[in-house]
Amino acid sequence: MELPRGYLFNGLFSGIKKTGLDLGLIWSEKGAQAAGVFTENLVKAAPVLLGRDFLEKGLLIKGILVNSGCANACTGEAGLKDAQEILKDLAVIADTAPEAILPASTGVIGERLPVESIKSRLRKLWEGLSPERYDLLAQAMMTTDTFPKIVSRSFTLSSGKRGTLLGFAKGAGMIAPHMATMLAFVLSDVEVERDFLQESLKEAVEVSFNRITVDGDTSTNDTVYLLANGLSGKIETSKDKQIFQKELLKVCSELARLIVKDGEGATKLVKVKVEGLRTEREALILAKTIANSLLVKTAFFGEDPNWGRILAAMGRSGVEFDPYEVDIFVNEIQIVERGLGKGKEWEEEAHKEMKAPEFVLTIRLREGNSSAEVLTCDLSYEYVKINAEYRT
Amino acid sequence: MELPRGYLFNGLFSGIKKTGLDLGLIWSEKGAQAAGVFTENLVKAAPVLLGRDFLEKGLLIKGILVNSGCANACTGEAGLKDAQEILKDLAVIADTAPEAILPASTGVIGERLPVESIKSRLRKLWEGLSPERYDLLAQAMMTTDTFPKIVSRSFTLSSGKRGTLLGFAKGAGMIAPHMATMLAFVLSDVEVERDFLQESLKEAVEVSFNRITVDGDTSTNDTVYLLANGLSGKIETSKDKQIFQKELLKVCSELARLIVKDGEGATKLVKVKVEGLRTEREALILAKTIANSLLVKTAFFGEDPNWGRILAAMGRSGVEFDPYEVDIFVNEIQIVERGLGKGKEWEEEAHKEMKAPEFVLTIRLREGNSSAEVLTCDLSYEYVKINAEYRT
Repeated sequence: MELPRGYLFNGLFSGIKKTGLDLGLIWSEKGAQAAGVFTENLVKAAPVLLGRDFLEKGLLIKGILVNSGCANACTGEAGLKDAQEILKDLAVIADTAPEAILPASTGVIGERLPVESIKSRLRKLWEGLSPERYDLLAQAMMTTDTFPKIVSRSFTLSSGKRGTLLGFAKGAGMIAPHMATMLAFVLSDVEVERDFLQESLKEAVEVSFNRITVDGDTSTNDTVYLLANGLSGKIETSKDKQIFQKELLKVCSELARLIVKDGEGATKLVKVKVEGLRTEREALILAKTIANSLLVKTAFFGEDPNWGRILAAMGRSGVEFDPYEVDIFVNEIQIVERGLGKGKEWEEEAHKEMKAPEFVLTIRLREGNSSAEVLTCDLSYEYVKINAEYRT
Repeated sequence: MELPRGYLFNGLFSGIKKTGLDLGLIWSEKGAQAAGVFTENLVKAAPVLLGRDFLEKGLLIKGILVNSGCANACTGEAGLKDAQEILKDLAVIADTAPEAILPASTGVIGERLPVESIKSRLRKLWEGLSPERYDLLAQAMMTTDTFPKIVSRSFTLSSGKRGTLLGFAKGAGMIAPHMATMLAFVLSDVEVERDFLQESLKEAVEVSFNRITVDGDTSTNDTVYLLANGLSGKIETSKDKQIFQKELLKVCSELARLIVKDGEGATKLVKVKVEGLRTEREALILAKTIANSLLVKTAFFGEDPNWGRILAAMGRSGVEFDPYEVDIFVNEIQIVERGLGKGKEWEEEAHKEMKAPEFVLTIRLREGNSSAEVLTCDLSYEYVKINAEYRT
């Protein structure tokens, strides 16, 4: 795994969860330009409110402090103060401003952070920082995730210098387009202007993290941070900008894919492609309606090419289309032609394709030339089990 | 069970399902005024298209032919012809016009009706009609329903004459506001004008069947028919109209309640009340967003008063509100006061309330004076099981 220059990591147990790592720190040796994209949920967690404020101040960012096990959402003024108090203590230890540390939390909503317990571990967290401990950081972000999600990509700039992007994510449940309960941090060593960084992140998020869904719920805590500390190559030419944006999108897309793959209880990763609409927006509405339908998702789990449920979901989406101009494919197998089933033998073939852990569902219409894709997963017994028992 | 005068019923096995009753007939001795409300799904099944056409012709209606096991949806011209051919044969046997028989189907989408098999049972179905066989009719409508749904109410009109309403419904899955995969037939012996009948049905459906949700999916086949054959009292005065509408609403509401109670795999029936919004529409959007959230529904299954998920669902609904002016109650137990949790001891009390098979979730805001209610159920392992295995 290639790592960007000048970043240190650590993760430890701080008493938020019952067991396991629950507090992580990313630290940049040099103050970094930073960008952020946050949940669109009206109900925003304390770390989201603080992180947004800190970014608006425009200071160089030194670190990201993340915890799992407690979302610090719906905690009011007290929750804001809890987070501020912790950041303040860490800032003293690190000899920096509290506003140079971006906070992020994930976990149960409505519960307070165990402030004293966390504070008592901050020095240990700080002193243990190391370039190799990125795996501990990734673990400290996890809630119901079953594996840590880390993606790294390196590239060469026009100056001949290298640049590297390193991304972390946690996901699992409450994942829906327009930011999931999902945290993602992308770190780079390139030198880059802040406005370009923010713009690039926004664009990348729109077609990666905002195109995935696990259960249609959007969280109070979704956060994507992007840091660039300038210890390596500088983004100068427009070609450099293109390279950076392309690589950033790849990192975000791969992290997004890993999040859906690790969706709570998921056994199938399904790409829903909708083609042939008048506008991309319409194609996206159709793709999301299919990707979020419980009946479609349970059919995925049952490996059942139940195209009637797909058409029924499309029909309630609010998008106008001719039901008798719809073709449906599972991978390359066509099961519906102009709105009518092609018969049991094709469904049997499609059923075989659906036995694989990943497949593509393509819906082709004849209304226009726009298309959109959404990644989703199936709905299994395990999802219900995880979410019925979450707090117990 | 009090029955309206002049109606006959039957139900039998006709080879659509593998076993069990799958074909039912309601017959009125006298041609009845009729009203209908249909699915708003863009994709409409053949019986929906035909039934809507027949009602528009304005003829007196003699019967309703219903089948389960096959939705006759996404079957194109062939599906329309299948249904017409069956109705034509029945019309010959019954010596009436095919357009005097309203069709309704529920079951798998995309499969054709076994026309010959059904036709060969029509005479037996006709000859077996009897006032007592309403239970067979109710059974013939069932798909994954676990119990037949029949409701009867009688009332006295200003003339001193009696009127009776008898309602049947099937539901179980694909139930969402704006008509579920749900068939409901309400029969009355009152004498009433057609326009008033249609208007009354539409109003009653709006606040009964359109306020329930099982899984957020809306079907291609939803149909509510209301017949009134005039063999008993006449609706004359405005007081009669009020009585009739009130009783009709009670029948529809009780049928709707039974549908949610029998939601696929449901173990909890939950009334979601949202109060204190600027408009009823906003209150309804909030109630529906909560009632359809997978995370909220799995928490119901786990008897977990997880109010964070409720606030998170509200926050993504698109309705503006102050998160710190939200109170949340489970029955009479308040768990959230002005956006903040009241603590574990109250949650423990709420958890006890949630052990009952039915409870009320009340969300009180301070934005205005409008409110709305939606009935929903929990999401259990069994829902996933039923829907992953539906066609196998």
